[in-house]
Amino acid sequence: MDVVQTERASEIAKRVEEFVRTVVVPYERDPRCGSHGPSEELVRELRSKARAAGVLTPHILPGGDHLTQLETATVLKRSGLSPLGPVAVNTAAPDEGNMLLIGKIGTAAQKKRFLAPLIAGDARSAFFMTEPAADGGAGSDPSMLQTTARRDGDHWVIDGTKAFITGAEGASVGIVMARSNTGEDGDEKVSATMFLVDLPHPSIRLERILDTIDSSMPGGHAVVRIEGLRVLDDQVLGAAHEGFKYAQIRLSPARLSHCMRWHGATTRAHEIATQYACTRRAFGKLLIDHEGVGFMLAENAIDLQQAELMIDWCAAVLDGGSLGTSESSMAKVAVADALFRVADRCVQVMGGTGVSRDTVVEQVFREIRAFRIYDGPTEVHKWSIAKKIKRDTLSGLHGA
Amino acid sequence: MDVVQTERASEIAKRVEEFVRTVVVPYERDPRCGSHGPSEELVRELRSKARAAGVLTPHILPGGDHLTQLETATVLKRSGLSPLGPVAVNTAAPDEGNMLLIGKIGTAAQKKRFLAPLIAGDARSAFFMTEPAADGGAGSDPSMLQTTARRDGDHWVIDGTKAFITGAEGASVGIVMARSNTGEDGDEKVSATMFLVDLPHPSIRLERILDTIDSSMPGGHAVVRIEGLRVLDDQVLGAAHEGFKYAQIRLSPARLSHCMRWHGATTRAHEIATQYACTRRAFGKLLIDHEGVGFMLAENAIDLQQAELMIDWCAAVLDGGSLGTSESSMAKVAVADALFRVADRCVQVMGGTGVSRDTVVEQVFREIRAFRIYDGPTEVHKWSIAKKIKRDTLSGLHGA
Amino acid sequence: MDVVQTERASEIAKRVEEFVRTVVVPYERDPRCGSHGPSEELVRELRSKARAAGVLTPHILPGGDHLTQLETATVLKRSGLSPLGPVAVNTAAPDEGNMLLIGKIGTAAQKKRFLAPLIAGDARSAFFMTEPAADGGAGSDPSMLQTTARRDGDHWVIDGTKAFITGAEGASVGIVMARSNTGEDGDEKVSATMFLVDLPHPSIRLERILDTIDSSMPGGHAVVRIEGLRVLDDQVLGAAHEGFKYAQIRLSPARLSHCMRWHGATTRAHEIATQYACTRRAFGKLLIDHEGVGFMLAENAIDLQQAELMIDWCAAVLDGGSLGTSESSMAKVAVADALFRVADRCVQVMGGTGVSRDTVVEQVFREIRAFRIYDGPTEVHKWSIAKKIKRDTLSGLHGA
Amino acid sequence: MDVVQTERASEIAKRVEEFVRTVVVPYERDPRCGSHGPSEELVRELRSKARAAGVLTPHILPGGDHLTQLETATVLKRSGLSPLGPVAVNTAAPDEGNMLLIGKIGTAAQKKRFLAPLIAGDARSAFFMTEPAADGGAGSDPSMLQTTARRDGDHWVIDGTKAFITGAEGASVGIVMARSNTGEDGDEKVSATMFLVDLPHPSIRLERILDTIDSSMPGGHAVVRIEGLRVLDDQVLGAAHEGFKYAQIRLSPARLSHCMRWHGATTRAHEIATQYACTRRAFGKLLIDHEGVGFMLAENAIDLQQAELMIDWCAAVLDGGSLGTSESSMAKVAVADALFRVADRCVQVMGGTGVSRDTVVEQVFREIRAFRIYDGPTEVHKWSIAKKIKRDTLSGLHGA
Repeated sequence: MDVVQTERASEIAKRVEEFVRTVVVPYERDPRCGSHGPSEELVRELRSKARAAGVLTPHILPGGDHLTQLETATVLKRSGLSPLGPVAVNTAAPDEGNMLLIGKIGTAAQKKRFLAPLIAGDARSAFFMTEPAADGGAGSDPSMLQTTARRDGDHWVIDGTKAFITGAEGASVGIVMARSNTGEDGDEKVSATMFLVDLPHPSIRLERILDTIDSSMPGGHAVVRIEGLRVLDDQVLGAAHEGFKYAQIRLSPARLSHCMRWHGATTRAHEIATQYACTRRAFGKLLIDHEGVGFMLAENAIDLQQAELMIDWCAAVLDGGSLGTSESSMAKVAVADALFRVADRCVQVMGGTGVSRDTVVEQVFREIRAFRIYDGPTEVHKWSIAKKIKRDTLSGLHGA
Repeated sequence: MDVVQTERASEIAKRVEEFVRTVVVPYERDPRCGSHGPSEELVRELRSKARAAGVLTPHILPGGDHLTQLETATVLKRSGLSPLGPVAVNTAAPDEGNMLLIGKIGTAAQKKRFLAPLIAGDARSAFFMTEPAADGGAGSDPSMLQTTARRDGDHWVIDGTKAFITGAEGASVGIVMARSNTGEDGDEKVSATMFLVDLPHPSIRLERILDTIDSSMPGGHAVVRIEGLRVLDDQVLGAAHEGFKYAQIRLSPARLSHCMRWHGATTRAHEIATQYACTRRAFGKLLIDHEGVGFMLAENAIDLQQAELMIDWCAAVLDGGSLGTSESSMAKVAVADALFRVADRCVQVMGGTGVSRDTVVEQVFREIRAFRIYDGPTEVHKWSIAKKIKRDTLSGLHGA
Repeated sequence: MDVVQTERASEIAKRVEEFVRTVVVPYERDPRCGSHGPSEELVRELRSKARAAGVLTPHILPGGDHLTQLETATVLKRSGLSPLGPVAVNTAAPDEGNMLLIGKIGTAAQKKRFLAPLIAGDARSAFFMTEPAADGGAGSDPSMLQTTARRDGDHWVIDGTKAFITGAEGASVGIVMARSNTGEDGDEKVSATMFLVDLPHPSIRLERILDTIDSSMPGGHAVVRIEGLRVLDDQVLGAAHEGFKYAQIRLSPARLSHCMRWHGATTRAHEIATQYACTRRAFGKLLIDHEGVGFMLAENAIDLQQAELMIDWCAAVLDGGSLGTSESSMAKVAVADALFRVADRCVQVMGGTGVSRDTVVEQVFREIRAFRIYDGPTEVHKWSIAKKIKRDTLSGLHGA
Repeated sequence: MDVVQTERASEIAKRVEEFVRTVVVPYERDPRCGSHGPSEELVRELRSKARAAGVLTPHILPGGDHLTQLETATVLKRSGLSPLGPVAVNTAAPDEGNMLLIGKIGTAAQKKRFLAPLIAGDARSAFFMTEPAADGGAGSDPSMLQTTARRDGDHWVIDGTKAFITGAEGASVGIVMARSNTGEDGDEKVSATMFLVDLPHPSIRLERILDTIDSSMPGGHAVVRIEGLRVLDDQVLGAAHEGFKYAQIRLSPARLSHCMRWHGATTRAHEIATQYACTRRAFGKLLIDHEGVGFMLAENAIDLQQAELMIDWCAAVLDGGSLGTSESSMAKVAVADALFRVADRCVQVMGGTGVSRDTVVEQVFREIRAFRIYDGPTEVHKWSIAKKIKRDTLSGLHGA
């Protein structure tokens, strides 16, 4: 980052941190924080306070430009200091990634209709991509995409089932990914198209909200049945049949923004565990004076430092213009695993208090467990990194 | 085990497994399974079915004798195949340990009054031992015991605060541990006494039920305020001032029975994850045909085998008449850590489904996380094992 | 084990331990312990002392019967208390496995010629199975076997290259595994035959002895070129074309005997590290009083206990008559990984002394590193366990 | 780094890498690479080639200035691509740290006498700091320093025993650390002084060279007896009694330079393992196409990336003028542990070849094992990081 960027990002980050620590944190015990995330009412209340404090959608500048990824890292980590923080200041998934994508490839009309209310914090959005594994649909493997979009006159008609659609309940804006070569015209190559839709929509039925181990995302994660959803061409996001390419554009920054937010949450858990260990005694001394505890906190400090460095490294790669597919896979694996170790140690250091909801540590632990699955489980990323190592090695072996 | 024991235990275990798999498992989605465990009504319903099936309190023989620990392992593992299983067949904590303790040191009158309804499955009990860390009370370190019992005429008067009292809400029987040398008579040595009390009791106030990551124990975990609780001598369990000794007697078997039950639950999670991996496909093949998945399941098989061996080894030590303090510490650490690895891998193998409550795997993961804390966190056990290693080594060095 | 077995094995084990601790251990600093194992002269000297002490080949009874596997475990663990111990008392690989195999399937004449001198401790043997990976030969994957045996009149003629042939240098007896369907007669199915040969032999050339991280095996590990080796039918071990079956018979006990011996060595390393930690001070207290050190020793105690239980469990499976292929894979993975953790912690506890050859801990660490590869790397075993899990699960799913 | 620094460092690093890969690597099989490191003759030969290639002492500029730490990282990683590389180009420990220290605090005369020949690559040096644990001397705990320096007229007289003195054999320059408040004048506070001495010296006797698991350092690691070593004041390095302060100055950069060099060596091991996995087949496909192998290489890529980031982060801290005590502890723990995981996986991926000296992987594994001990074992660093966390937390708790 150059000096101007650093100062700009630091200033925003400082205000976001102040807001999250003083205004958002007390809401963590609000009964409107349910098992499917904070209620819509609570989201509105938090955002209204963020708007007043000038920290709403802090990573997008007034003209619509986004901060660089490195700057975004600085800001999003602070927004994540509470599990409620990202929702409060509008840096949460999936909105953050959806705003980025629409901003990059949407038309002016689409931006006005779909993007503006998201940036204003007046609406939420959902990204209809993954499908139920039980039906052989696309989970981690996008080539298995089964939802179809076929032409019918000047409409597209979309049918399929989507699973794990975060925030679908309560969202006003949806991006639906569907297989657009339906095989009807003999085209065998899989291609996909993205569509923008207003929500709720009579052809999109929320079958159920999954009960999951995590509980920070408003609307939870839905299973959704799409039947005969008709959309016009002006709702195609970008060009038709280019959905996989756009998914790649969204992929790395979205993946990395998860790392940023959860880094903040885990940092907070570490602060809580550290203060606990520095004030409670057992077996004749402060907990932290037991090496068994002190070492865990030292390992936390190292893991948090490493995770931060991986985030910033990958952010710089993205700022350099690369898709960063492999780098963001490496960052996702390293950061998710490191943050889980940290969260797990925080629970352990705090004993009975650690497994209770008396502090936010218990929730952070649950959220990070889910994070090791969301946006691609560790194993899928390792598989993809190994493929790249093979490609690079074989081309080196054969090329020289 | 000799042949007679093996046959007896196998026969009981088989019936318990059949009951849990066919009758209990369907209740796992019953809405009466709340975040503080199954409701009292649900517990009654399950026990009534267990009674009818002849599998209630299966580890205690009609005459009151307990199965050996090795036999108990065989039975309790099966009862644990569902998180609801132990409650259903009355092998759950803390009742199982409390029945063992009262059976060993209670008077005939105490057994009739307090033990009989527990064995009959008509009552639940609570063990009032641990105290809030925030107040410097006894968590893992019993020497910090702050609840006091002082003589007042022919009564004892008990005052203090207890925390993490599992099942206190809804219990009919309580065992209260209190410091019985109050310092008033100049006695500096810490001693403790155990008292049997009927619950609910006006002098014992449930301040709150903790919200915790686990959710299998009826009544959850309570914070309890005891103020001026007056009991007569006939409610002293065993001899006065011998509480720490009795705690030792209860300790190892209770600790080990946790290992047994959770071994069952984790075995079930592994079955579910294995079936998932053998029926779902991604990237062109069954999940289990991906080494990244298959290796995790292989590691599960190894961990479950090792955990079972540690349980049986420790059970045999206890059956041999030893207190098994060190052996049960070793077993607790090894089993809790192994089962957590297994549960974590099951979640990971199942991806999005793994972090959802669509299967019981998600709950098992949460329960086992808590288990790494309950009955002494891993670190306290390692500390105690290291102390023993030092003692043995120094005596060897100096003794020879 | 029944009582008679237990007593018999304990008595032998006790004598073996006494011999290893008092007679063998002082030889650990003998300069004849080279990087390719103890010299032949040293082996003879040690065996002569073992013979005199009545502990030579202690796991084979005078009549030629072997102890049960459970008994063998008791004895071989003690023989392993020094890396020199197994060679000294003739329980070392590959002789131990070769004696077992020839004893099981050799003819009377073969036993007299090849087995008797091995049992007497007058000869060593080698098992010519694995082949160089560089040439695409059979490493962990036996189906890649490239050494061929073809009929020529009443002879077999064997050609090929073998790698990692432990103890080939100095051995008098060899078992050579070769592909015996040469494709000449249109037989596509891979089959193999085992041959017994006297060594050294002019048609078997030791190309080089590998320099390896381990250094306990006399003769080291050789790369061997076999060219036009002619043998008669009476040198076929068992039946022709049944080599893979015999390899399976040898496999599990040989694999498990490695676990037994290395368990002994690692136990010794743990004793040394424990005594070190109980006598050295840093930062104001004994090393063991630092939890960072004490916890490592506690983890060692747990790992050693678990490894012992896995060995005994697998031994009992083999004694029950099963091939134990999957069980010995599970035991190999669990034991090799556990012993490596133990050895690594011993090094760490002892700091600079741990990485020096001032104690045998450094060698044990190196040996166990190699052990994680020898007899099948961990990954091959996990692959094979996963295959079994799949088979069992699918048959369960389809069978019900 | 600014642009000028980046270009300068890249250019040097490129030349160093070219030299190491083409000139040094073939020497790895030179028989003069012994178990106590390369012989003096071999060192001279390598350095003569480095001098000719213009890559000798590449991190020190002609005028005597050192590259920044960030630049040094770039260069030293490349020098480490072979275990012989640092010795060849004169970036090895302990010379690199000794040159830095003498350069910072030596007098002009001292620099001429002791530093110039080191920079010219004509001499080697040793740092006499650590003492034998067996005698209760200073290992990781400097407060236990037992070697004494007492005034005798205008001389200092030094007595003591030092252990693990890397490169003492063959060194021309020594820095000796001794306790300089001898208690004679009633001064209770421990202080230490550093002295520069010419080697070999009749009062400094090499008692023995330790046999250790590592083998890259010329001269190995010596145990040294210092008896009545008399030095004049002009041989005091810096001010008397300030030895602990100077040790701190040397500490972090020396620690970090280990990380840099071993990062290079491990990168090389990873390259070798990757090429192995991309060219060898087992069970029907290339090794790397087995997820069990591919995942290990992916984990290597992540670990190497993280280690590099930690090194650069700590280098930047040092370049900012901080002592970086805590940061270099964090970097040491993270990097040593990560590199060990990488080296261990490389061995495992390569199977039998991995544990043989057919490639340099086996040596790298052994070197990195020692590195987890050298310059402070992981546990000492965690202890020190935990102390800092406690200080920071308590000051935060009390300060606000």
